[in-house]
Amino acid sequence: MSPVAPTGTAPTGIGLVGAGRIGSSHARLIATRVPNARLVAVADVRPGAASALAGPLGAIGHTDVGELLADPEVEAVVVTAVTEAHAGLVEAAAHAGKGVFCEKPAGLSLAEIDRGIAATTEAGVAFQVGFNRRFAAEFAAARAAVDAGRVGTPQLLRSLTRDPGLVDPAGVPPWTIFLLTLIHDFDTLLFLNPGAEPVSVYAVADALVAPGFKDAGLLDTAVVTIRFDNGALATAEASFSATYGYDVRGEVFGSGGRLEIGGGPRRQLAISDADGRHVDTPRGDTELFPEAYAGELAEFAAAVREGRAPAVTGHDARRALSIALSCIASVRSGGPVDPAVVAATIDGRVR
Amino acid sequence: MSPVAPTGTAPTGIGLVGAGRIGSSHARLIATRVPNARLVAVADVRPGAASALAGPLGAIGHTDVGELLADPEVEAVVVTAVTEAHAGLVEAAAHAGKGVFCEKPAGLSLAEIDRGIAATTEAGVAFQVGFNRRFAAEFAAARAAVDAGRVGTPQLLRSLTRDPGLVDPAGVPPWTIFLLTLIHDFDTLLFLNPGAEPVSVYAVADALVAPGFKDAGLLDTAVVTIRFDNGALATAEASFSATYGYDVRGEVFGSGGRLEIGGGPRRQLAISDADGRHVDTPRGDTELFPEAYAGELAEFAAAVREGRAPAVTGHDARRALSIALSCIASVRSGGPVDPAVVAATIDGRVR
Amino acid sequence: MSPVAPTGTAPTGIGLVGAGRIGSSHARLIATRVPNARLVAVADVRPGAASALAGPLGAIGHTDVGELLADPEVEAVVVTAVTEAHAGLVEAAAHAGKGVFCEKPAGLSLAEIDRGIAATTEAGVAFQVGFNRRFAAEFAAARAAVDAGRVGTPQLLRSLTRDPGLVDPAGVPPWTIFLLTLIHDFDTLLFLNPGAEPVSVYAVADALVAPGFKDAGLLDTAVVTIRFDNGALATAEASFSATYGYDVRGEVFGSGGRLEIGGGPRRQLAISDADGRHVDTPRGDTELFPEAYAGELAEFAAAVREGRAPAVTGHDARRALSIALSCIASVRSGGPVDPAVVAATIDGRVR
Amino acid sequence: MSPVAPTGTAPTGIGLVGAGRIGSSHARLIATRVPNARLVAVADVRPGAASALAGPLGAIGHTDVGELLADPEVEAVVVTAVTEAHAGLVEAAAHAGKGVFCEKPAGLSLAEIDRGIAATTEAGVAFQVGFNRRFAAEFAAARAAVDAGRVGTPQLLRSLTRDPGLVDPAGVPPWTIFLLTLIHDFDTLLFLNPGAEPVSVYAVADALVAPGFKDAGLLDTAVVTIRFDNGALATAEASFSATYGYDVRGEVFGSGGRLEIGGGPRRQLAISDADGRHVDTPRGDTELFPEAYAGELAEFAAAVREGRAPAVTGHDARRALSIALSCIASVRSGGPVDPAVVAATIDGRVR
Repeated sequence: MSPVAPTGTAPTGIGLVGAGRIGSSHARLIATRVPNARLVAVADVRPGAASALAGPLGAIGHTDVGELLADPEVEAVVVTAVTEAHAGLVEAAAHAGKGVFCEKPAGLSLAEIDRGIAATTEAGVAFQVGFNRRFAAEFAAARAAVDAGRVGTPQLLRSLTRDPGLVDPAGVPPWTIFLLTLIHDFDTLLFLNPGAEPVSVYAVADALVAPGFKDAGLLDTAVVTIRFDNGALATAEASFSATYGYDVRGEVFGSGGRLEIGGGPRRQLAISDADGRHVDTPRGDTELFPEAYAGELAEFAAAVREGRAPAVTGHDARRALSIALSCIASVRSGGPVDPAVVAATIDGRVR
Repeated sequence: MSPVAPTGTAPTGIGLVGAGRIGSSHARLIATRVPNARLVAVADVRPGAASALAGPLGAIGHTDVGELLADPEVEAVVVTAVTEAHAGLVEAAAHAGKGVFCEKPAGLSLAEIDRGIAATTEAGVAFQVGFNRRFAAEFAAARAAVDAGRVGTPQLLRSLTRDPGLVDPAGVPPWTIFLLTLIHDFDTLLFLNPGAEPVSVYAVADALVAPGFKDAGLLDTAVVTIRFDNGALATAEASFSATYGYDVRGEVFGSGGRLEIGGGPRRQLAISDADGRHVDTPRGDTELFPEAYAGELAEFAAAVREGRAPAVTGHDARRALSIALSCIASVRSGGPVDPAVVAATIDGRVR
Repeated sequence: MSPVAPTGTAPTGIGLVGAGRIGSSHARLIATRVPNARLVAVADVRPGAASALAGPLGAIGHTDVGELLADPEVEAVVVTAVTEAHAGLVEAAAHAGKGVFCEKPAGLSLAEIDRGIAATTEAGVAFQVGFNRRFAAEFAAARAAVDAGRVGTPQLLRSLTRDPGLVDPAGVPPWTIFLLTLIHDFDTLLFLNPGAEPVSVYAVADALVAPGFKDAGLLDTAVVTIRFDNGALATAEASFSATYGYDVRGEVFGSGGRLEIGGGPRRQLAISDADGRHVDTPRGDTELFPEAYAGELAEFAAAVREGRAPAVTGHDARRALSIALSCIASVRSGGPVDPAVVAATIDGRVR
Repeated sequence: MSPVAPTGTAPTGIGLVGAGRIGSSHARLIATRVPNARLVAVADVRPGAASALAGPLGAIGHTDVGELLADPEVEAVVVTAVTEAHAGLVEAAAHAGKGVFCEKPAGLSLAEIDRGIAATTEAGVAFQVGFNRRFAAEFAAARAAVDAGRVGTPQLLRSLTRDPGLVDPAGVPPWTIFLLTLIHDFDTLLFLNPGAEPVSVYAVADALVAPGFKDAGLLDTAVVTIRFDNGALATAEASFSATYGYDVRGEVFGSGGRLEIGGGPRRQLAISDADGRHVDTPRGDTELFPEAYAGELAEFAAAVREGRAPAVTGHDARRALSIALSCIASVRSGGPVDPAVVAATIDGRVR
């Protein structure tokens, strides 16, 4: 549920940078489903793209992000540009004194994220990263159950993402499966095993869906094993080609019981016919947990208004990226790696 | 999903009459979750009740409904007053030239509903009744599946409502189980068996939860059998004391298959412990299908703005009430009744 | 689970009368899945039918049931002949001093069942009727849960049977839906509402699957409402044409909770593909609860060996038939009937 | 389903060696649920143990296994002795000319299994290993679905075993989690990814349930990643302390869809009360898939009678053990290992 804005409090003015698929979705949510936020402006370097999105939503379009950042009605920025531009935009927003919500990953190196953390800290503005699953009702309730001790000490965890279809293998940059897809699962595992740090990461990955693109660096199927400092063992798993729909699931097995997240339909409708009993499954990420996307944006708008840190911070972005980078190191070395060692040795972008 | 208001179109100004439980819920939804509606005013005869609700939501409180109806910013009225006042308020709103959304039942006699239909028709304003299940994702999808022929011709239908608790038996007027509770199920059966009319209704009911109140006319458990003119046989069932939560389910069995609605959790979280595998169930009606309540109000605001008939009309209110009245006639006579005969012979309120 | 025969105890010698579909199924079960029973002989008036079934199972075939009854190795008789012959065979078996298991219904009039009860009582032999659902794991566990007070006092019950296909409408005698199909549901409702007696029965039925056979007396869709003397209200429902498989379900709603029986697959295998998530459903009655058929025969063999009454008796046969006959009376009269009045006035076969 | 023994074919005479928990379970199944097998004798070195089990089941007890092997009525041997004795008994049975069914693992080194394969091959007798999951309805149906191409090419697989309780950590020998528990999952993964061979195995394991026994070599929690030569990536996971019951599940994700095995109850009974909706979960391995234990024994009896190889052979035992040994090597080395290399270098028992 989006929070009710206190009466007399104006919605937070939002400027959104990047009018692509997820940017368009966020812009529409802000305009229609996030009562404590107001879409003020959209920027996109492609001529006309920002206006086409912003116009029908009552906002202004820019091709120059500088104009958006200069708009005093823009109190905070939502970054949905291409991945490579994320870190620079976080810093630019911070320097303009705006809070910033950045789609994951918030950078392609730990150094980039550290600069984003430093810039937003110095500017005293909010810095949130788009780990939306934390705002899905199931994952939030699972964490609450862990906190309440319902499953005891976590011992085995699992998180998986299976995307319904790899549309254009040629357009997928190397390591996307770790940096953009599994990074959600890494955050989920950190979220559901609170306080624990990874001590060992082992990743295997292959191009099973589009083998012809393996030489170009595309990996479309991966399994990751993570060992945490509280003893818990976790697996994360992803594929880019789930024929049956968007499949996101989680599991926490502990000394006192087990939590299962996902795996069934949210809509309680089943059809039985001569072929058995069927339930639909969602096909898109924005369709899977609709409240999660509105929820993370509402949290961001509220944090900006209230001058406090949001529920998911740059530090969370850094922790998840550290695991993703460790996966890349593991695939390269063929064995398990220690994330602390990886962090100390990798300081540039991996792609 | 609430519809996106076209840019440049102002939200519909709403005046809400009756600041009780459901009125408060509707008022909060309008203020925070229905972008195409705006809460302008609340009226309640109890001193302070309207202001207490309206104030924090940025609206005006009245004790005199006449003042609310006289406010030009109030374009449409939501009636959530006590049941006995529904029909009069529908007429008053129509006479003031306002569209009207009325909680179910829209009247306690067919004549009352007929007057509401006549008044709103004459005034050329929208008249919607609060059959919210039509706006729940599952029921809407079930109807779409019926329309698409997924289950063939409906032959057996079922709709049930089990409320989690009878708080105050003394406060429940006679025939409530038919007029206020099962009326939802009657509308659901009409909705899922489109075009069919009931030709026979048989009801059995008893006071099993609070037997001490049976003499006062309280019936808390009921089973109804309805025969439709397309041959379909339907059952509706209600109880006022489901220990395990709010339980609303539907089923359509047809020549080509079966549809099941409800019966499981919407939230995909299961906890397994030494006592087995558990899933939570919702405990309140406004918790069961949250989108349904926002959805019906958004539809009403849109119908008012667009000057068209809403998706659920006074005629639907009349059809469901006709079955509820037939149930009362059946319990009184001890046998099945023909709704057409009941309609022709009962012209006053049944309570 | 079939009981383990005590060491040194010979399996009960069984003679089976009627080598049709269910007879063949029972014969094979006795020969292979019921360790405490031994198939000695099969009788069927159709030349060759008994031998064809008995031979491969190591038993003797007869065309004359008298020879089977005269065989001293036949300690007990399983009656799976045509319905019209049931009652006469029960009496004949009793007069021959054999315990008798009779497929449902054990007679087509209360008088027939009374004669069977009298004959078996006089002969001091077991008399069991084929209400197999009592031996299905789910229904047995549901009764245990009711007995343990897990749902409090039963208030609303439901039992339904949907058969996957009406193969030959012309071959279905009148009232089959009540006498052969719903009689299972009537027994289930009596089983799950222990100690209660029906005080009112109302039935509606129609020929929706094969309308052309309605004039010949075939009803293929029915809904029955039963009121019990403990206040509980029950519905039973049947159809002869479930496209999606054999569907048997039950429900007990009580003052303390709810029991659901059936509705899902027993085999834990789900397949997800581009059309959603699918689970198989069983298509035949002997496939639905396989342990129930072996279980009822093992109980019969044990009761005969131990000289005690079986778990389901002629009295249970009588109680369920009384409800079936009341349904027929209700359909004929168009209103609810009192089973006690029906029992007092109907003394011949209804077909 | 147990197969029907052809008429005139005597059940296979079975001698069982080892009257412990699983031996007692198998003996009772043979005596009561496996029509094509007959329990002739039981041997156990502990005085009285064999007779106590055999007597009530109509079989003979021995303390000397040589006497059992010398009994001409014993046509085949079921080995349920302590793990360390498995391999020697397989050879002894083969030398006595008896077919042999051996509980898993069939040896503690590849050399031992090779000797068992050689001895049974030379003697021309059946050699089956107790990978019972292949006989569970779900797993058998899953393999059939894979064979039928329902999920396309397997890309991601999972198999897990969670045991409800570690009763006596002190009594658990080192590496049990791989050699006795996960060996089921390794066989399952080989079974569901037919024709594929493992090329890399990585295992992490810890003592999370009983940390005090870690120094003694007890590992109670493990996660294994296996890479197959057809590209498929698999995880296997085990824990010795599932509070909620015996949890066995499998999953096959492929280019065409997904198969899920397990995860729900087999018994279709749900109870809803004030704490939500509950279903029971089985607590013991022999309770989880009862037909699987009878099924594997019936298959063995049939293979012996028909003089053919059983459905699960010594070669299957060798393949699964090879993965288990690779896990041990992986835990020792801290990195992934190649099973072919492990097989070439480890030739003695690992414990």
